[in-house]
Amino acid sequence: MPLQSRHLLGLDGVKREDIQLILDTAVSFREVLDRPIKKVPPLQGKTIANLFFENSTRTRLSFELAERRLSADVLGFAATGSSVTKGETLKDTARNIEAMKVDMVVMRHSAAGAPHYLSRVIEANVVNAGDGAHEHPTQALLDMYTIREKLGRLEGLHVCIVGDISHSRVARSNIYGLLTMGARVSVCGPATMIPREIEKLGVGVFHHIDDVLPHVDVLNVLRIQLERDAGRLFPTIREYHNFYGITRQRLEKAGRNITIMHPGPINRDVEISAEVADSEDSVILQQVLNGVAVRMAVLYLLSTKN
Amino acid sequence: MPLQSRHLLGLDGVKREDIQLILDTAVSFREVLDRPIKKVPPLQGKTIANLFFENSTRTRLSFELAERRLSADVLGFAATGSSVTKGETLKDTARNIEAMKVDMVVMRHSAAGAPHYLSRVIEANVVNAGDGAHEHPTQALLDMYTIREKLGRLEGLHVCIVGDISHSRVARSNIYGLLTMGARVSVCGPATMIPREIEKLGVGVFHHIDDVLPHVDVLNVLRIQLERDAGRLFPTIREYHNFYGITRQRLEKAGRNITIMHPGPINRDVEISAEVADSEDSVILQQVLNGVAVRMAVLYLLSTKN
Amino acid sequence: MPLQSRHLLGLDGVKREDIQLILDTAVSFREVLDRPIKKVPPLQGKTIANLFFENSTRTRLSFELAERRLSADVLGFAATGSSVTKGETLKDTARNIEAMKVDMVVMRHSAAGAPHYLSRVIEANVVNAGDGAHEHPTQALLDMYTIREKLGRLEGLHVCIVGDISHSRVARSNIYGLLTMGARVSVCGPATMIPREIEKLGVGVFHHIDDVLPHVDVLNVLRIQLERDAGRLFPTIREYHNFYGITRQRLEKAGRNITIMHPGPINRDVEISAEVADSEDSVILQQVLNGVAVRMAVLYLLSTKN
Repeated sequence: MPLQSRHLLGLDGVKREDIQLILDTAVSFREVLDRPIKKVPPLQGKTIANLFFENSTRTRLSFELAERRLSADVLGFAATGSSVTKGETLKDTARNIEAMKVDMVVMRHSAAGAPHYLSRVIEANVVNAGDGAHEHPTQALLDMYTIREKLGRLEGLHVCIVGDISHSRVARSNIYGLLTMGARVSVCGPATMIPREIEKLGVGVFHHIDDVLPHVDVLNVLRIQLERDAGRLFPTIREYHNFYGITRQRLEKAGRNITIMHPGPINRDVEISAEVADSEDSVILQQVLNGVAVRMAVLYLLSTKN
Repeated sequence: MPLQSRHLLGLDGVKREDIQLILDTAVSFREVLDRPIKKVPPLQGKTIANLFFENSTRTRLSFELAERRLSADVLGFAATGSSVTKGETLKDTARNIEAMKVDMVVMRHSAAGAPHYLSRVIEANVVNAGDGAHEHPTQALLDMYTIREKLGRLEGLHVCIVGDISHSRVARSNIYGLLTMGARVSVCGPATMIPREIEKLGVGVFHHIDDVLPHVDVLNVLRIQLERDAGRLFPTIREYHNFYGITRQRLEKAGRNITIMHPGPINRDVEISAEVADSEDSVILQQVLNGVAVRMAVLYLLSTKN
Repeated sequence: MPLQSRHLLGLDGVKREDIQLILDTAVSFREVLDRPIKKVPPLQGKTIANLFFENSTRTRLSFELAERRLSADVLGFAATGSSVTKGETLKDTARNIEAMKVDMVVMRHSAAGAPHYLSRVIEANVVNAGDGAHEHPTQALLDMYTIREKLGRLEGLHVCIVGDISHSRVARSNIYGLLTMGARVSVCGPATMIPREIEKLGVGVFHHIDDVLPHVDVLNVLRIQLERDAGRLFPTIREYHNFYGITRQRLEKAGRNITIMHPGPINRDVEISAEVADSEDSVILQQVLNGVAVRMAVLYLLSTKN
């Protein structure tokens, strides 16, 4: 049973069976990562181009590792110093890269919809590694994988996403994926950070973190963009920490075992205390490890759809 | 019958049999690119250093793909953040890289003659990937390959190169190569863009594109450097487009099937209309694909000369 | 007999047997570099992350070559454009990279002690590729390898290091390593460039190069930081050259065969004359070649300690 689509552009509209298939496939790749030799041959001779038009160490390294461990040839490409700065259109860049017989393209771009456009103009499989504030599907898949690994299931769990929901592709992809898998999803943050009418998606909205904590199984804590957002979306960093920072005291008051997630990189003692980030309930490093396995699964499954 | 030289520094002075050998060898590598597994073993265990002292996404990726598909180990090197910025001489940089037992060096440099100098001070094979406004031999070879693929021959064809001939290494290498292969070559552009005494090479000179179109088989349209040259070499971009832009109307008026080439990246609707770039007569994407095959051929043939 | 430590953080405190083991192991890897196929399989399936928080072409390329020739998978990482610029702590960067199941980390960092810290918070083997003005152990190992190759031994030889000893990690690692191996070590430079109390390590101190030359077997000439230090640590570049520049005249006056070393990149005719750098007594390019072999030995030996 292959995936429905040749591309992974987002989780909006992706069927439950497809998410299930990706998560189940990732289990076997996760086992590969525990072997002394972490390499398997399925993408031998295939070329994957990583087109990162936005800086990203973590996601780029994770994809690159996934690609190499599947034995693919990897072409790096950074926005700076590229034809892009010469004013070439995205279409021409993409077509040129495809003309070199690249089999798959992994793309991060600041414009929402860029990978979708790409998937319409080239033949290669396209994976969205983050497009503007729109979607970041592999992040949501690795989040779901990690929840399932820790808690055994997704269905019926209550996951709360805390932070700047309006500008977060991570939040958006998680909401689509988790709802499809039967989880309950709520979001928490100041009104300036919550998109209007998000309730219509079936998402609960909270403005006080202490109101929602007693009811959740998983907290997915988003990174605060310190430089960009302080004074604009919230008064000061200290104030954000006081109202929304996840601390041990706050968690203890809730009186519940809550699994703690964060897509990284962490601002220690801003959106999450160092103590909580390093605690036993935190699965932040497991997310990183599972990310490689989930991306191997996505690339492998898409490659069979060529 | 091996190549005459251990290096590919330019097409000036390269014999017809050598160009023929490269183009013929490229045919078999072009077939490799249509296989599911596009990798062949001839450069296994060889190390190639790509020394790009000028930014270039397209040429760098094309060489890197060619190298990987020949199973070479690839060392990347970018000018920024390198010893070069510490004031090291080109000679020392080159010798150091060679001391690491690099087998071949592919070099792009803003100074005309840099790869020639390099070939005199190091033992590794040197490939010129563009030196100032001097030569870009693999681009001319891939252009010739693409013409031969489309029209079956080079001899007797009339190829016109349009644009800033004075500052174009692509033009220069094409002129040398095409004349050697028996093609007729002309150039077309405003007087500010045509080198004096170019007729002495045996090249026709035109200042009005409509004068030459009825006689040509192939148009090789050069990229206009928008920021650098507008107002200096020509009054405005609009005016350049009006006088030299390749449009469907202009081509229809010429009443001839003309093969359209461009080394990329394209300025759509400046030197070429989007419609013409995407038309059936355009072989622009074939150029990109053939570029990988031609570079594989060059690297393979030079490696046998060690 | 394996190495004592799972990491190579510096040569301070490293036992003679360990240095001997690395140098002896490097001999067999040095032979590999003379073969047509320079690749051996011991690190197949292992992943090495090169974390270069400071620019370095030469050292990075040397490590990358060593890693590839051991058949490891190599993850590149540059400080610019990374999470580091997002204010992530070194600890979080390191843990994240480790969470991706990286086996070894090679790190260059501007802060002395950064690799030591890293080795305490992650499980992977750590190799120091230069930390601030502290240590650069693989450089000292390749220097010792090169001396032993040229002169047959280290014990009893007199090695003089010339230049800015205070700010040199190369000097510091060489002093530790050479003294451990039984060599005699002295340093030479203006008083502004010699650390106080360095004599307590057992190192001779000279301020006039002509005083020490008649007694030395090996000169290790350090690079002068032209832009940074002229006018601060010494009056002018010309004056530095007059007092400390290694020239043929100076060497001839000393009346001795002196082996000339330099960690590169060279400022020709500043700290060393072009003539001396290119002379038969110079082993500067051998240092570069041996660097790859020594790094292969270090990585191989550490990998057996996992």
